[in-house]
Amino acid sequence: MTNADRLWRRIREVAEIGRTEGGGVARLSFTGEERAAKDLVASYMREAGLEVREDAAGNLIGRREGSEAGGPVVLTGSHVDSVRNGGDFDGPLGVLAAVEAAQVMHEEGTATRRPLEVVAFTDEEGARFSFGMIGSRALAGLLGPNDLGQTDGDGTTVAEAMRSYGLDPQRIGDAARPPGSVAAYVELHIEQGKVLEDAGLPVGVVTGIAGPVWLRLSFEGEAGHAGTTPMGAQRRDALAAAAAVMRLIEEEATATGSTVGTVGLLDLSPGGINIIPGRVTLSLDLRDIDETVRDGVESRILEGAKEICTGRGVGFRVETLQRLAPAPCSEEARAAAWAACEELGFEPRELPSGAGHDGMQLIGLCPIGMIFVRSRDGISHNPAEWSSKEDCAAGAEVLRRTLVTLANR
Amino acid sequence: MTNADRLWRRIREVAEIGRTEGGGVARLSFTGEERAAKDLVASYMREAGLEVREDAAGNLIGRREGSEAGGPVVLTGSHVDSVRNGGDFDGPLGVLAAVEAAQVMHEEGTATRRPLEVVAFTDEEGARFSFGMIGSRALAGLLGPNDLGQTDGDGTTVAEAMRSYGLDPQRIGDAARPPGSVAAYVELHIEQGKVLEDAGLPVGVVTGIAGPVWLRLSFEGEAGHAGTTPMGAQRRDALAAAAAVMRLIEEEATATGSTVGTVGLLDLSPGGINIIPGRVTLSLDLRDIDETVRDGVESRILEGAKEICTGRGVGFRVETLQRLAPAPCSEEARAAAWAACEELGFEPRELPSGAGHDGMQLIGLCPIGMIFVRSRDGISHNPAEWSSKEDCAAGAEVLRRTLVTLANR
Repeated sequence: MTNADRLWRRIREVAEIGRTEGGGVARLSFTGEERAAKDLVASYMREAGLEVREDAAGNLIGRREGSEAGGPVVLTGSHVDSVRNGGDFDGPLGVLAAVEAAQVMHEEGTATRRPLEVVAFTDEEGARFSFGMIGSRALAGLLGPNDLGQTDGDGTTVAEAMRSYGLDPQRIGDAARPPGSVAAYVELHIEQGKVLEDAGLPVGVVTGIAGPVWLRLSFEGEAGHAGTTPMGAQRRDALAAAAAVMRLIEEEATATGSTVGTVGLLDLSPGGINIIPGRVTLSLDLRDIDETVRDGVESRILEGAKEICTGRGVGFRVETLQRLAPAPCSEEARAAAWAACEELGFEPRELPSGAGHDGMQLIGLCPIGMIFVRSRDGISHNPAEWSSKEDCAAGAEVLRRTLVTLANR
Repeated sequence: MTNADRLWRRIREVAEIGRTEGGGVARLSFTGEERAAKDLVASYMREAGLEVREDAAGNLIGRREGSEAGGPVVLTGSHVDSVRNGGDFDGPLGVLAAVEAAQVMHEEGTATRRPLEVVAFTDEEGARFSFGMIGSRALAGLLGPNDLGQTDGDGTTVAEAMRSYGLDPQRIGDAARPPGSVAAYVELHIEQGKVLEDAGLPVGVVTGIAGPVWLRLSFEGEAGHAGTTPMGAQRRDALAAAAAVMRLIEEEATATGSTVGTVGLLDLSPGGINIIPGRVTLSLDLRDIDETVRDGVESRILEGAKEICTGRGVGFRVETLQRLAPAPCSEEARAAAWAACEELGFEPRELPSGAGHDGMQLIGLCPIGMIFVRSRDGISHNPAEWSSKEDCAAGAEVLRRTLVTLANR
C-alpha cells in the first residue's frame, strides 16, 4: 500500500528546489534547478530498487525488470521542470507517485510480467523555449533538428542548452524507442481544473487530452507621434489592431462553450508613452478536446484578424509554433484505473484534460492513460497550486494498481 | 538672411550624435549623447557670438544683450534630447534655427531693445523618466522634489541622473526665472502632422498646444493554466480586460473627432504562452486642444474600464503621471509670425499643435508662440521623420523675423 508520508515528504523536498520569492517554483529545462530535481529523484529511484539511467534527451529513467524477458515496457511518470513561477505539484506528483508505486512493489515483492519504467521527462512545460514536451517528443522519435535550433529568451538554442547540460544533440535520436517496445504509458497528474473538486472526489480517470495549437501573431503598423497622428486612417496602431484581435479571440473561444483561448505573451515596439506602437507580437494558445471545434475557432480568428488588420492598414502574419491533435486515452488504461478506483471505494469519474501532457507525444508509440488528482480551486501554474496529502496518496494508489494490472496484461 | 547651408549642415551634424542601428537617433536625458549634442550646440552658439552658460537644470543657454539694460528677455529654442529611436528634426531644428537667427543678427549687426536668449532645454521628450519637459519645468519654477524622485527603467532617479551629469539637484530652484523676467518664448518645430503638407505650405503659425494627460492603468486578475481554466467567470484574465479597455479608448477618442488616445506601453506578468496573464500595466496618452473634450473622454474611459473590470473580477487602478492644460499662443507672437510669413511671400496658415512642447510649461511665466515647419508624411518619433532643407530655412527665417519684432516691442 502507498506510503502517504513518504510520498508527501518527497513532494515537499522536490518543491524546495528552485523556490521563488513568491513562494512558487522555477525549474526551467537544462538549468541547475532541473538538474538538482532530477538528481534528487534519482536518489529516490535507487531507494525504490530501480536501475537508474538518463537517455540522450536527458529523460531520467528508473527500471524494474519483468518476469518475461524482452517484453514491452510499461512506462509511467511525468516531469520535474516547471513554469517560471509555478506550483509544487504539476509534474513532481506524477514522477514521485510512480517512484512510490515501484517502491511499494519492491517492498511487497510484487512480480509483473512486463518491466516497469519510471520516467521524469525533460521540459514538459515549454516555459523556456517556444515549445515543450521535449523529452517525450525525443522518446517518441518526434524531435527534429529544426526543434533543436529553437531559442530561448536569451538566444540560446535547445542544442546549446543540451550541450551545457552534458548532452550531445547529435545523438538525440538514441532517445527514440522502437515501435512495439512500450506497452503503455500512464501518468498521474493534478487536475488543474475544478471538476473533481465540484464532484467531491479525490481521483478521476482521464478520457483524453485536449490538443493545443500555439500560434505567434505579428502586427506591423507604423510608429508615430501619439499627439499629432489623428485617430482613423492616418493612424496605423499595431497595438490597437492587436486589441481588436484579442477581443475576437475571447469572443470566438467563449462562443463554443468548450474551446479555451489565451494570449499569454505580448511584446510591442518601440515602446514609449507618447509613441504609437509600430509592431506587436503576441502568442495564442487554443485548446479543445474536439479538434474540429478548435480548428474552427482558429480559422474564424485568423480570418477576422486579417479583416481587422486590412481595414487598419496593419500587416498581419501568423506562425504556428505547435499543433497537437487531441489524444484519447486507451480503453485498457481507463478500465484499469476505473477498477482501481472501485477497489479503493472511490466513486469512479471520467473527465477530459484541458492541459497538455507528455502522453500527447507518445500517442503514436503506445496506448496512453492518465489519472487526475483533485486540485484546490483548480489553480495551477501558480504558487497557490495545491492538492492534499490524502488526495496525492489516493492518486498514487490508483496509479500503482493500474500499473500492476497493465504490467500483467 | 538665414544661411540655409549652415543651418542644414548643423542639423546633419547634430543628427550623427546617438545614431541608432535603425537610422534614427537616441539621445536620452542626462546621457553622454545629450551631453555631446549640447556641447556641439554650445560651439555653434559661440560662433553666433552668444555668451554661453548652463543653468541648474542643465538647460544650455546662449545670450545676446539688448540695447536696454535690465529688461525682460526674449527666449527661443527647443531641445536636443530624443525618443529611443527618433528622427533628426524633432528638437534640434528649433535650437539650431534659433542659433542661426542669432548668428544672422550678429553678422548683420541687428540691435534689439530686449536681450535674446537661445535655449536647448533638458529632457523635453520624457523618454527616460515617466515625465518630460524637465528643463522647461525647472525654468518655470515648476519642478518639485517629488519629480526629482521619479525613476527610469533601471531605477535611477532624476536626482541621481542629474548628479552623474555634474548637476546639484538641491540647487534646481536656481534655474527658475523670476516673474516678469521673460518677455516671450518662441519655438520653431516640425509640425509632426500633415496639415501643412496637405496645404502645400512650408511654414505655419501655431494657435496653441494640445494638453496631454498621461495615465498608468493597472489590471489585477489571476494567473492560471491556459488549458484548464474555462472561458467565463472562472477566468480572470488581466490582458483580456486590458484589451477590452483598449478598444474603449480607441472608440471614445475617435468619437470626438479631435481627441487622440494612445497606449504606447504595455507590460504583463507572469508571461508564458500557456499562462493566463495575472497582471497588466499600460500607459494612456490623451490629448486635445479643448480641455473639456479631453477630460470628458478620460472620464468615460475610466468609468467604462471600471465597469469592464468589475464584470470580470479584475482589479483596476489609475495613476496620473502628468496632466497639462492646453496652452494658447499669444496674439502678439501669432501676429509677428503671421507678418513674417506675409513678408516672405508664404501664405500664412494657422494650425494647432497636437504634440506637447516646452512652451506648455512656460505659459505661466510668459506669453508663448510657435512656428511649424512642414513634415513629410507627418511622420515623427521615427527615423523616417523628414523636413526639407528649404522648409527648414524658411521656418528659420520666419523665426528670426518674429524674434526681432518681439525683441523690439
